Amino acid sequence: MAKHHPSGMDRTFSALADPTRRGVLLRLMDEPGLSVSELARPLSLKLPGMMKHLDVLSDAGLITRSKTGRTVSVNLSVGPMREAMAWLQRYERFWTVSLDRLVAFVEEDDEQ
Amino acid sequence: MAKHHPSGMDRTFSALADPTRRGVLLRLMDEPGLSVSELARPLSLKLPGMMKHLDVLSDAGLITRSKTGRTVSVNLSVGPMREAMAWLQRYERFWTVSLDRLVAFVEEDDEQ
Repeated sequence: MAKHHPSGMDRTFSALADPTRRGVLLRLMDEPGLSVSELARPLSLKLPGMMKHLDVLSDAGLITRSKTGRTVSVNLSVGPMREAMAWLQRYERFWTVSLDRLVAFVEEDDEQ
Repeated sequence: MAKHHPSGMDRTFSALADPTRRGVLLRLMDEPGLSVSELARPLSLKLPGMMKHLDVLSDAGLITRSKTGRTVSVNLSVGPMREAMAWLQRYERFWTVSLDRLVAFVEEDDEQ
C-alpha cells in the first residue's frame, strides 16, 4: 500500500478503530475530567496500557490531558471529530438520496 | 494494548483511516460499478496495491465486488457504515448539548 504521512482524519479514524478507545470517549462524555486510573479501573487495564491508548487519542486530538499535582485528568476535545463526522455525513447523504431514488423507482413501477 | 478480535466497527474505522480508501469510497458514490483498473488509474497505483485496499474495504463490508467476464466491478455497500455513523452521532449530540449549555451559561452571565 502507498506510504503516506497520516493526516488528521487518518488519525481520527485510526483512533476510533479500537473498542477500548471508543469506550473511553463515551465514558468521558458522562464523566469529564476522569483521571487515568479511574479510566483504567473498570477495564482492568494496567496504567501503561491505558496510557498507550490515551496517547493514541491525544495524538489524534480527541482528548486533552491536564495535570494537577500528581493527578492527570482527561477531557474530550471536539475539533478533529467534526471533520470525521462531516466526511461520514457526505456518505450518509449519498445513501439517503440513493434510497429515495430506489423508493421512487419502486413506486413508479407499482403504478404501471 | 489489549488484544481483541476486531469487531465490525473496528474494521469500518480502520478501513476509513486511509486517504486512498476514503477516496475510493467517494469516487464510487459518483461512479458506481467502476472496475479495479479504472479505480487505480487516476491514483497511479499498481493493480496489486489497489487490490489490497479493496480487500480491506471488502473485509469491512464497505464495498462489494462482482465479476463479469474478466472485469471486476466495485460497488458501495451501506450496512457497516451506518453503525459507525450512529456511533459518531452519539458523540455529535453530546457536543451539541454541551455547546448549548455553554451558550446558555454565557448568556445568563451576560444578564447579570
